[in-house]
Amino acid sequence: MEKVRVYNFAAGPSCLPLAVLLKAQKELLNYEGTGMSVMEMSHRSPVFSKIIHHAENACRKLLHIPDDYAVLFLQGGASTQFSMVPLNLMNKNKKADYIITGNFSNIATTEAKKYGDVHVAYDGTVNHFIHIPTQDELSLSADADYVHYCANNTIYGTQWHYVPDTHGVPLVADVSSCIASEPIDVTKFALLYAGAQKNLSPAGLTIVIMRKDMAGHEQSITPLMLSYQRMIDKESMYNTPPCFQIYMFSLMMDWLLEQGGVEEMAKRNKEKADLLYHTLEQYPVYRLHAEKDSRSTMNVTFRTGDEKLDALFVEEAKKEGLVNLKGHRLTGGMRASLYNAMDIDGVKTLCTFVEKFAREYGGQSHVQG
Amino acid sequence: MEKVRVYNFAAGPSCLPLAVLLKAQKELLNYEGTGMSVMEMSHRSPVFSKIIHHAENACRKLLHIPDDYAVLFLQGGASTQFSMVPLNLMNKNKKADYIITGNFSNIATTEAKKYGDVHVAYDGTVNHFIHIPTQDELSLSADADYVHYCANNTIYGTQWHYVPDTHGVPLVADVSSCIASEPIDVTKFALLYAGAQKNLSPAGLTIVIMRKDMAGHEQSITPLMLSYQRMIDKESMYNTPPCFQIYMFSLMMDWLLEQGGVEEMAKRNKEKADLLYHTLEQYPVYRLHAEKDSRSTMNVTFRTGDEKLDALFVEEAKKEGLVNLKGHRLTGGMRASLYNAMDIDGVKTLCTFVEKFAREYGGQSHVQG
Repeated sequence: MEKVRVYNFAAGPSCLPLAVLLKAQKELLNYEGTGMSVMEMSHRSPVFSKIIHHAENACRKLLHIPDDYAVLFLQGGASTQFSMVPLNLMNKNKKADYIITGNFSNIATTEAKKYGDVHVAYDGTVNHFIHIPTQDELSLSADADYVHYCANNTIYGTQWHYVPDTHGVPLVADVSSCIASEPIDVTKFALLYAGAQKNLSPAGLTIVIMRKDMAGHEQSITPLMLSYQRMIDKESMYNTPPCFQIYMFSLMMDWLLEQGGVEEMAKRNKEKADLLYHTLEQYPVYRLHAEKDSRSTMNVTFRTGDEKLDALFVEEAKKEGLVNLKGHRLTGGMRASLYNAMDIDGVKTLCTFVEKFAREYGGQSHVQG
Repeated sequence: MEKVRVYNFAAGPSCLPLAVLLKAQKELLNYEGTGMSVMEMSHRSPVFSKIIHHAENACRKLLHIPDDYAVLFLQGGASTQFSMVPLNLMNKNKKADYIITGNFSNIATTEAKKYGDVHVAYDGTVNHFIHIPTQDELSLSADADYVHYCANNTIYGTQWHYVPDTHGVPLVADVSSCIASEPIDVTKFALLYAGAQKNLSPAGLTIVIMRKDMAGHEQSITPLMLSYQRMIDKESMYNTPPCFQIYMFSLMMDWLLEQGGVEEMAKRNKEKADLLYHTLEQYPVYRLHAEKDSRSTMNVTFRTGDEKLDALFVEEAKKEGLVNLKGHRLTGGMRASLYNAMDIDGVKTLCTFVEKFAREYGGQSHVQG
């Protein structure tokens, strides 16, 4: 393989495993002797039918999804789920609890207010989203139709390391940036959703995993494509789905299972994150954004405290083939996203750079200073 | 190039030009020296920004789109537009006229009723959608917020060969299966939309071309991702767009411009359709579904009148590398879709087969009988 590929730390869309890309490249003009690309196939054809069923079954196997849960392949990203969730699930008391731990859970909260009463069970705005609330910090309602939270905050680099106890109220989680990065007990959730462009596939695919009995009670104003029940009934093919992404997703599922599943991924992801956090902690020039207990395994956010130095870090890193390390405009600084497809070599190379940069521009190390 | 590729007459997703697929394949692991695939790129990166702007500009050039029109890259297919159009455009009298000429315009009509008063200006259900209404057959309202129609009916193989006169009422058209197949006077429309998986790109991308002043007045219940104004303001990137499809779309725009634009495509498409219709007309075994004046250039629908013979036709054609000729379940029989990427050689090969099959199974020809 050409050594021109970079280490891509983008927050999403993000790097894909080379093995997956190579397979896609090889099959691009002629998928399994059909004489056509997956991009050219009728979504109703037996060959595509096999692809989408394989994608679903492999996903069920990978995440240990029980039969009373549906797996849906949708479009529109997590932002469409911000509307789809309340339109479908605010159907008894028309009330829901929202936990705000970052930009996207904040937008989800605002959106839900269009369709019912929203109670904010926690709001981390005041502390710049450096903190994930403990169970005791949550003010949950007994009569909410559901509780919504975002399990990993891509922008701020914080992550929930426990599943909140809602005392029987259905739990909904946005897992866009942590799905398939570690084992998850699906049965604790009424609905999980994820924009797939971080850990699972190229952009343009949204995964929903939901208890089937949660569907079928949508508000009458629900747009036809935003009805979970319709998508369950039509096995995600009410209309033409994003076929090529579903194919890429199925290749990713195979790759993840081959690697040892989410159990193995959790080990690797912890190793990668620990290494980077530990390295950053050695040098006073780096300040970590998130509180230690709230740190994300997926997105490591840090800064030097000097915007020019931050820019230099990003610039110099790029020269060494370490790209997309600039932080989101809401946090500034740097961000290294360590999704499943980022291998340990990439993180080691980044750590070497982190050390070199600190020695060159950041004064003394904690350890060696 | 390997001669294993088939002639693919699928109604969508459908064949793509080999040159476009080869370019995509070549760049799949390393796009223009970036060291990554387009699938791995941040949608906020300068390199992707260049791709999406090129896609838009090339589309503007190809379809001669004036500056007071927006070009949007959305998700969810035409079926999402069935909701998005009334949610955004039923905003003055909350009334709209719908013209029903097939399955999808029928669904669009039903969906619009959720959001306002719908007047059916024509309904072709009774005659099995073999006919496109003339201007005189339309019962249009003076106080409608807009008039909606579907310019090409993929399932029935009928097509409008004129733009209806709405006496100043904004005109909205679903052009999913005929966009870029011939010149179109964009200024006659308030809004055009198309699922892109037929003439423009792989599935997962929806194109909207709209007069900018039509946006900004959506109903308060509109989901955030279904607001045209938001998508105009954010240049189609409120959230992560379907990046790879936009890239494929941009390659398709380049290819179409290289071929001579929609003017040249119109010539080729007419030649292809004329050849196939003419060949089918020679043999009494074939019955054409659509009325002569309502025939589609894009989707040719026909049958033998004998379901077993239809199945044999599809089966035998497949053996000769002519695939996806089975008609939609609503019409039965056969359907050959002749989108831009289907070349004249494919149609000639099909015509040769059509003749051979008629001689073998269909009795005498009109001409030679």
